[in-house]
Amino acid sequence: MHPLRVLGIDPGSTATGFGVIERLGSKIVHVAHGTLRPKGTSLAARLAQLHALISEVVEGHAPDVASVEQVFVSTSPRSALVLGQARGVALAALAALGVGVEEYAASSIKQSVTGSGRAPKRQVQQMVGRLLALERKPATDAADALAAAICHAHAGRLVGIGAARARGSRAARAGALHVRRRL
Amino acid sequence: MHPLRVLGIDPGSTATGFGVIERLGSKIVHVAHGTLRPKGTSLAARLAQLHALISEVVEGHAPDVASVEQVFVSTSPRSALVLGQARGVALAALAALGVGVEEYAASSIKQSVTGSGRAPKRQVQQMVGRLLALERKPATDAADALAAAICHAHAGRLVGIGAARARGSRAARAGALHVRRRL
Repeated sequence: MHPLRVLGIDPGSTATGFGVIERLGSKIVHVAHGTLRPKGTSLAARLAQLHALISEVVEGHAPDVASVEQVFVSTSPRSALVLGQARGVALAALAALGVGVEEYAASSIKQSVTGSGRAPKRQVQQMVGRLLALERKPATDAADALAAAICHAHAGRLVGIGAARARGSRAARAGALHVRRRL
Repeated sequence: MHPLRVLGIDPGSTATGFGVIERLGSKIVHVAHGTLRPKGTSLAARLAQLHALISEVVEGHAPDVASVEQVFVSTSPRSALVLGQARGVALAALAALGVGVEEYAASSIKQSVTGSGRAPKRQVQQMVGRLLALERKPATDAADALAAAICHAHAGRLVGIGAARARGSRAARAGALHVRRRL
């Protein structure tokens, strides 16, 4: 069985998190994660560099699909514009390299790693580290990106999860994935 | 004297206007304008196509500089996000090809083509057509892009404009450029 490689992206105006995982059957393993911080003297230069950095991640890790959080616009129009600029660049870079992009509601992403759609950011960060058996907690942006990737891997296994839930598995009740430790 | 070639861009979620002009001394001539309407089944695909289309415009017209309107965020956060996505892609595409981007307030752009910072869109459209001696009024998006380009050409000639104003020239009083008809 060919593993599914998922790239999660969490775009932001100054920092964009990314996380790469692989799913093979019911097993999910960590591949890489990090934070992209484009430098440049102008907004346009930073956005161009973000495009280049995301392209590098895609070329370096060859994901089958990308997963991003749907934006729930609760912030000010100004913040939404600034976020939109980075998000647009990220989506364009992914599509230009032929990587399909799936979007998930923030609540679905939180649900898939913590079992609660309303979990605070710190809980997401902690559970991502635990599910992927990371030695250190990932930084917030990277944790959100990894969570988006895990959510997509999860989404492809809804039937399996449903079956597990019916059997009363504790992990399934919690809405968490059956994640094995990386060897 | 080497003419200055200015590309104006008016990014939008479904249509992005562009306009290219040349300034040689006090003369401004129209080079090209149009509207980019990326097609694609997903947002990411449309944004990637927008990036490619803007790159084509830059490669085809080799502008010295680009001019865009600063966003005055009066709309909803949702609209700001959607606009931001297209705007980010446009800025990144320009910077990636080494084209510097200048930003101007909407009021400065309107002032430079109509003489009033509060002119309605239709007046901008009409004056752009007249200043550049176009046979047909450009579409709104392209007119806004051409106006941004004219504003940048204008900004580089503030001293000259001031001198003309002091002489009481009617065009200068109106805040308009001395634009000669293209031969």
